[in-house]
Amino acid sequence: EVYSILKSELLHDPSFEFTHDSRQWVERMLDYNVPGGKLNRGLSVLDSYKLLKGEESANDELFLACALGWCIEWLQAYFLVLDDIMDNSHTRRGQPCWFRLPKIGLIAINDGLILRNHIPRILKKYFREKPYYVDLLDLFNEVEFQTAHGQMIDLVTTLEGEKDLSKYSLLLHRRIVQYKTAYYSFYLPVACALLMAGENLDNHIGVKNILIEMGTYFQVQDDYLDCFGDPKVMGKVGTDIEDFKCSWLVVKALECANEEQKQLLHENYGKADQACVAKVKELYKVLDLEGAFAEYESNSYEKLRKSIEAHPSKAVQAVLKSFLEKIYKRLK
Amino acid sequence: EVYSILKSELLHDPSFEFTHDSRQWVERMLDYNVPGGKLNRGLSVLDSYKLLKGEESANDELFLACALGWCIEWLQAYFLVLDDIMDNSHTRRGQPCWFRLPKIGLIAINDGLILRNHIPRILKKYFREKPYYVDLLDLFNEVEFQTAHGQMIDLVTTLEGEKDLSKYSLLLHRRIVQYKTAYYSFYLPVACALLMAGENLDNHIGVKNILIEMGTYFQVQDDYLDCFGDPKVMGKVGTDIEDFKCSWLVVKALECANEEQKQLLHENYGKADQACVAKVKELYKVLDLEGAFAEYESNSYEKLRKSIEAHPSKAVQAVLKSFLEKIYKRLK
Ligand SMILES: [Mg+2]
Ligand SMILES: [Mg+2]
Ligand SMILES: [Mg+2]
Ligand SMILES: [Mg+2]
Ligand SMILES: [Mg+2]
Ligand SMILES: [Mg+2]
Repeated sequence: EVYSILKSELLHDPSFEFTHDSRQWVERMLDYNVPGGKLNRGLSVLDSYKLLKGEESANDELFLACALGWCIEWLQAYFLVLDDIMDNSHTRRGQPCWFRLPKIGLIAINDGLILRNHIPRILKKYFREKPYYVDLLDLFNEVEFQTAHGQMIDLVTTLEGEKDLSKYSLLLHRRIVQYKTAYYSFYLPVACALLMAGENLDNHIGVKNILIEMGTYFQVQDDYLDCFGDPKVMGKVGTDIEDFKCSWLVVKALECANEEQKQLLHENYGKADQACVAKVKELYKVLDLEGAFAEYESNSYEKLRKSIEAHPSKAVQAVLKSFLEKIYKRLK
Repeated sequence: EVYSILKSELLHDPSFEFTHDSRQWVERMLDYNVPGGKLNRGLSVLDSYKLLKGEESANDELFLACALGWCIEWLQAYFLVLDDIMDNSHTRRGQPCWFRLPKIGLIAINDGLILRNHIPRILKKYFREKPYYVDLLDLFNEVEFQTAHGQMIDLVTTLEGEKDLSKYSLLLHRRIVQYKTAYYSFYLPVACALLMAGENLDNHIGVKNILIEMGTYFQVQDDYLDCFGDPKVMGKVGTDIEDFKCSWLVVKALECANEEQKQLLHENYGKADQACVAKVKELYKVLDLEGAFAEYESNSYEKLRKSIEAHPSKAVQAVLKSFLEKIYKRLK
């Protein structure tokens, strides 16, 4: 399996003299944090590459596409390990967050950095001689830059002690999710596949825009499921209301609410107290945000299909459609 | 001034749509964390480059050397911001650590990532068209990888609850400091200058080894000054003994101590209690670690001078000598 190969190479990287203890530490950290997600992002590189090249791809090219997919999973693990510390979260993928384990604590910060530093090692090992190597490095660097800045707006707007709902708007919501999620989860896998297929990314701004739209739609679903999804299906209990998140739901609620309802939101949003949370959820029901979401979902879907069908290349259309179908009406 | 130019470009990077608030956040974070150090690392790039090229370098090449120097200062800021969180430190460069400021807290983790993400933006902006661009990216990636792994051994060996002095040895000490400090503080600036001068780093393994030796010597000084230096001159009070650090002093003490003295170390090293700290310091005096350090210092200096003088290129010799003279017998 590709993951085991990559892991073993990283644990024997000649740029560092591992001791037995440090090698074990990194191995345990990788096994805990890297596999075990839905692998959507990672698999997308392989799927997209196959669709772009037809089924006649050589085996070693398919291996490379998997390796790039794993790089995105590594990137995701890096973001999640650090995000959980900053959000003071308790669980992730149905198990305790890495920093919550005994003897880990804030060493998890450095573990996050190690995850991040593995990516260029993998890229160098497998892609150093490829004509698109520099573009790959630039791509990962740019996407990470965007994600870190998305996180920043998210963190700064949710800042404890500055809780101010009046800052929240669809525009702010879109900006946060576009940068925090869409670039690395949607654009990055397809961009990796395009580079492998020999494409110049500057010629695919249209594809990028569609993927960013799709990522935004994905995050709106995420926000919706945080409140209305089934915790058993999702493997976690949502806390966006308690956490004062700039969720699509609260933004939409602020848009539809009358003065009295707005007042209720201002008084109860962002409080850990479960009675406050219940009041907010009740208001969401009264305002029929479930209906608003259903409408948003079908509108987004139609718009995305149209944009995709307007794309000149059938292969690219296939990539984008397969992505869209994977997330449409998802329940987790 | 180069710093202001770089900062302004980063705050207007077209890859992200800044809001007023987020731009202000980043600017304040940069001003607090990036300038204000000794700038040794940053200036070394410029100095080395001048020595390699003679004085006839074009102005824009000198600007580029400064930009690379600032990239190293950015890297340093990134490491320090995160290291202070992990070490639970209070002050840095005579002011509170960034994460200690009101409203910052663990958002500082993401600020660290932003500092790190600025580096490839600067490199791309100024070096994208240079023949050595890929090598520059690979160099920064490799050195960061090494530093993160050095930090890892440091963190794992100092792990709370596993305090075990018998693991500490000169070999472990060397491994920690080589990876944690020497690569990025000593090798990286000179390697940057060599790349700018058109050199292939594979032909300069000897230079790398000398710089790693020098970095190790530098860290031994650091360990020495932590206990024996003047806090007023250094701008901080050392806490290596309390923190159970694998310092050169404790390793040396373990080497010279008799059984009874070892017992004292085991009982008192790594305790916050000032009486314990005083006992350890007293033992250091009894074992004449000041003398041992003076001997180490002059031996290292002689060995380094000899290695440098054996180098075939006078220009490279000048670079290495100037570096060595800057740190020999430093008091802070
Ligand atoms: Mg989170
Ligand atoms: Mg978060
Ligand atoms: Mg969510
Ligand atoms: Mg520290
Ligand atoms: Mg430290
Ligand atoms: Mg020190």
